[in-house]
Amino acid sequence: MIIDIITIFPEFFTTFLETSIIKRAIEDDLVEINCHQLRDYSDRKHQKIDDTPYGGGAGMLMQFAPFYEVIKKLKTKDSHIILLSPQGKLFTQSSATTLSQKKHLILLCGHYEGIDARVEELIDEEISIGDYVLTGGEIPAMILSDAIVRLIPNVIAQESYEEDSLQKGWLKYPQYTKPESYQGYDVPEILKSGHHKNIEAWRKKESIKKTYEKRSDLIDQIKLTDEEKNILDELKSKNNS
Amino acid sequence: MIIDIITIFPEFFTTFLETSIIKRAIEDDLVEINCHQLRDYSDRKHQKIDDTPYGGGAGMLMQFAPFYEVIKKLKTKDSHIILLSPQGKLFTQSSATTLSQKKHLILLCGHYEGIDARVEELIDEEISIGDYVLTGGEIPAMILSDAIVRLIPNVIAQESYEEDSLQKGWLKYPQYTKPESYQGYDVPEILKSGHHKNIEAWRKKESIKKTYEKRSDLIDQIKLTDEEKNILDELKSKNNS
Repeated sequence: MIIDIITIFPEFFTTFLETSIIKRAIEDDLVEINCHQLRDYSDRKHQKIDDTPYGGGAGMLMQFAPFYEVIKKLKTKDSHIILLSPQGKLFTQSSATTLSQKKHLILLCGHYEGIDARVEELIDEEISIGDYVLTGGEIPAMILSDAIVRLIPNVIAQESYEEDSLQKGWLKYPQYTKPESYQGYDVPEILKSGHHKNIEAWRKKESIKKTYEKRSDLIDQIKLTDEEKNILDELKSKNNS
Repeated sequence: MIIDIITIFPEFFTTFLETSIIKRAIEDDLVEINCHQLRDYSDRKHQKIDDTPYGGGAGMLMQFAPFYEVIKKLKTKDSHIILLSPQGKLFTQSSATTLSQKKHLILLCGHYEGIDARVEELIDEEISIGDYVLTGGEIPAMILSDAIVRLIPNVIAQESYEEDSLQKGWLKYPQYTKPESYQGYDVPEILKSGHHKNIEAWRKKESIKKTYEKRSDLIDQIKLTDEEKNILDELKSKNNS
């Protein structure tokens, strides 16, 4: 996969590309990530790329022309062009999975008060990473890249991402590691029992309990097994009693 | 405001702290952001901070003790401690507004397969920035810092954030800037008319139309004015005809 990131802050990505899983995926040739300075595609003085909005309003907008030119240069038949914007479709793990199968992603990072709306005619998709306002599309582009790259085969061990929270819809059960006790905080007894079947049952139950208590909205999207339905009914009746 | 970020990759934040609005807010003494290396709070050989899970399972977990120690050192009566995790409450613009009024935030960044669940007993809040799986809590900590810092008084011009998408619940109307025409892509005529009242009405309508088409889920959360109700009804009847 190739990811081209279009930004007015290419240096912002330096440490991102040099850290952890992304760094390894690049070194192993599993992904190529290029950051392009949008200003290089401006033909104005001082490489300016912003101007005031037609019809009035606060702040400056990013212009259409530099985006048009950089897309013209980078786009191939395999390209999937994404605008990062608070106006887009909400990004989810399932979008990450779909996008991880693309050959070429072009990510456009907005800034200032927004982008000239004509840019929307050049893109395949507008994505928001959440319902909050950020300064620019740079951190969202990192979010997308991170979530997508770790799903590319061989980037991380498969058992790892299959066990991730949300990969199956449920939040993950609570996990504990050494030491058994620290400053009065203890590991639950059952996890030290060595009884794998009981541990598995406890984890299943805790996972459902956590999802029910913290993010019950997620449950509507899960196709429940009979076992899961029983555990949920038990939780609900406890809550009502 | 002081933001303390606890991470095993403090260098990851270098360019974030040196870019754009965050940089200016730090220079103007409106916020202080410190990154702390979690490994400095490990008493193990090679400053290790991870170990295998009790009860079995793939991967490594971050241990409780280093988090306990760093929190003990940094926590004051003004502290609000947040764990960034895919299991938390979804972060929204309204959480950003609430958090922007705190004096001291401590952000804990997870990694590996997760964090020893005892850490949850030390925190005030568990926050997720969206329903997708990331490598660690570092980019989410940037998201929170960015969204929160720009709401601190005097960081950006007030008219700027009050006009932001989502600040009032609606997506923002399409915006255009120079040139009027580029490669066959044109600015809508009305925006060049100079007729402010018509422009305002057009923008209002476009904003509602965009929200209705792209994120109708947001509308349920808005207290509609009569004018907004009328525009929505018109859109709905058009869609059904």
